[in-house]
Amino acid sequence: MVICKKWTLAQRFDGKPTSANFKLVKEDISEKLNDGEVLCEAVYLTVDPYMRTGEARNAVGGTLFGEQVAKVTVSKNPKYPVGTIVRLMSGWRSHTLVKDAGKEILRSAEMSDLPLSLMLGTMGMPGMTAYFGFLEICQPKKGETVLVNGASGAVGSLVGQIAKIKGCKVIGFAGSDEKCDWLKELGFDFAYNYKKVDVDAALNEAAPENSVDCFFDNVGGTFTVKALNHMKTFGRVSICGSISAYNDTTLPTGPLPFFNILKSQLKVEGFIVYRWHQRWQEGEKEMLQWIKEGKIKYKEHVTEGFEKMPEAFMGLFEGSNFGKAIIKV
Amino acid sequence: MVICKKWTLAQRFDGKPTSANFKLVKEDISEKLNDGEVLCEAVYLTVDPYMRTGEARNAVGGTLFGEQVAKVTVSKNPKYPVGTIVRLMSGWRSHTLVKDAGKEILRSAEMSDLPLSLMLGTMGMPGMTAYFGFLEICQPKKGETVLVNGASGAVGSLVGQIAKIKGCKVIGFAGSDEKCDWLKELGFDFAYNYKKVDVDAALNEAAPENSVDCFFDNVGGTFTVKALNHMKTFGRVSICGSISAYNDTTLPTGPLPFFNILKSQLKVEGFIVYRWHQRWQEGEKEMLQWIKEGKIKYKEHVTEGFEKMPEAFMGLFEGSNFGKAIIKV
Repeated sequence: MVICKKWTLAQRFDGKPTSANFKLVKEDISEKLNDGEVLCEAVYLTVDPYMRTGEARNAVGGTLFGEQVAKVTVSKNPKYPVGTIVRLMSGWRSHTLVKDAGKEILRSAEMSDLPLSLMLGTMGMPGMTAYFGFLEICQPKKGETVLVNGASGAVGSLVGQIAKIKGCKVIGFAGSDEKCDWLKELGFDFAYNYKKVDVDAALNEAAPENSVDCFFDNVGGTFTVKALNHMKTFGRVSICGSISAYNDTTLPTGPLPFFNILKSQLKVEGFIVYRWHQRWQEGEKEMLQWIKEGKIKYKEHVTEGFEKMPEAFMGLFEGSNFGKAIIKV
Repeated sequence: MVICKKWTLAQRFDGKPTSANFKLVKEDISEKLNDGEVLCEAVYLTVDPYMRTGEARNAVGGTLFGEQVAKVTVSKNPKYPVGTIVRLMSGWRSHTLVKDAGKEILRSAEMSDLPLSLMLGTMGMPGMTAYFGFLEICQPKKGETVLVNGASGAVGSLVGQIAKIKGCKVIGFAGSDEKCDWLKELGFDFAYNYKKVDVDAALNEAAPENSVDCFFDNVGGTFTVKALNHMKTFGRVSICGSISAYNDTTLPTGPLPFFNILKSQLKVEGFIVYRWHQRWQEGEKEMLQWIKEGKIKYKEHVTEGFEKMPEAFMGLFEGSNFGKAIIKV
């Protein structure tokens, strides 16, 4: 008998996620496998802030969506023998019966001897988000000044390090002194605890006279409004996330940025990383190289136990994670 | 004796311009001209909304800045004999003593037999603003849907017509029924009086299911926030003006747009037209061709009398002008 545990959406999100949104369901998925099918067991799962926004994809009663790294435990498919590590978009579930392997099993990155959990972080979607979302939209040039918020997070910490590789001055904002210390270790030139500093004063110090060339935004809201005031003419802004807004039932309000966008001739672009899907391997290859060379460091915040997934997810909005949030089954 | 009349800034703008901001000063500029110098008399002057924002360039007591079309009345420069029509950036003044003709006399467009006042409108800065600001930033494609506000203005009416030339569906918002009627005459597919309609309802009608591909924004503020909700994925937004904000001492507030920019992967870019200075002639040439072919129509709102410049300027923020505001001396 194979009992699959899965986290389902008990009720729609309304404001911050609470435990009432989640329901653990057990399901017997024992079945005689047909030819071509494989049974997989989750090894690592991921929680990411963007999942809060996917209500259209999350039906009440359905399994929450998301990616996982899993191991093949039963196989009727010679391409995927028992023990094979695979990447699945099968949601928050402990076991997955894969019927159409060619479609359901996603291509895995060349991982060399890196930890498999990185497939969900630096070598996975968050890594490619940083790589393409920063390089393609911000087009950073050597000597330029780069600002990133949510800077100790899965994406932000990579953006800052890529910016250093490209020869930029890097300013990061994060949510604790400990996180800021780590940003300094990573080579950030300035790191501020946004809970303690005045954002304008900090930017006046780190980027005097409105000298931010590139701004990679994970946060949105009034932070972004303020940051736009510190940009240089022809500055580029990559809008990657709006974590400050995900849990609001209405959009946050504040001074509207359009006149500033005009005056400084800014380019502000939002993106979802899958637009670069065709170029994914190019990003993975360079990221792997940088990790091997010690130019990119990563930190994971590992929560043990499938049962704790909701807790790990809710923690994202409290800044409880320090590094990429990973669930180890 | 040559008496030059000039409008100076009596006190800094604070909120809407009022007559207290302007002072008419007379100055005797009779001088024996040196070799190379010319004396010019203004024929047409222009008032444009952007002038409200140029306080850094407008010193209290100084002449208000701006462009004019003038005629040479005295000449000691064989390149500019008496009667030559020139373009000057000499400000709100009736007479100009040009000392360094090579520098102060701006290149004039090839006007064919068009009215000279067009040098300040369709064939001048507003025309190039529409041409480059729309085509370069919005990159409109045949069959796409284009939204423009301030649509009956000097720039907006050209953007809509260029969009029609490019084979787009065009939606315009203007401030009176009469203006909307004219937009329909120009070939706009939809024209709404923003004072009478609900912007969301109008856009749901004209661009169902968020199908605006390109948005050329002259207005800013909450109109822009709303419009961003009606854009298609990968939509392009050209931020040309923020007339709704120019007279505010603080920025208007409203729901912040960053999450919408992210979700729809929009590209929002502000510009000032002089960035395309090197390509000016390319724009003039095509605009001239379109005018000759009857594909671009223009409307001027001519105020007679140099004394009425402040009045014409103040009217811009009330929507009193219908077409490009021109002062005929």
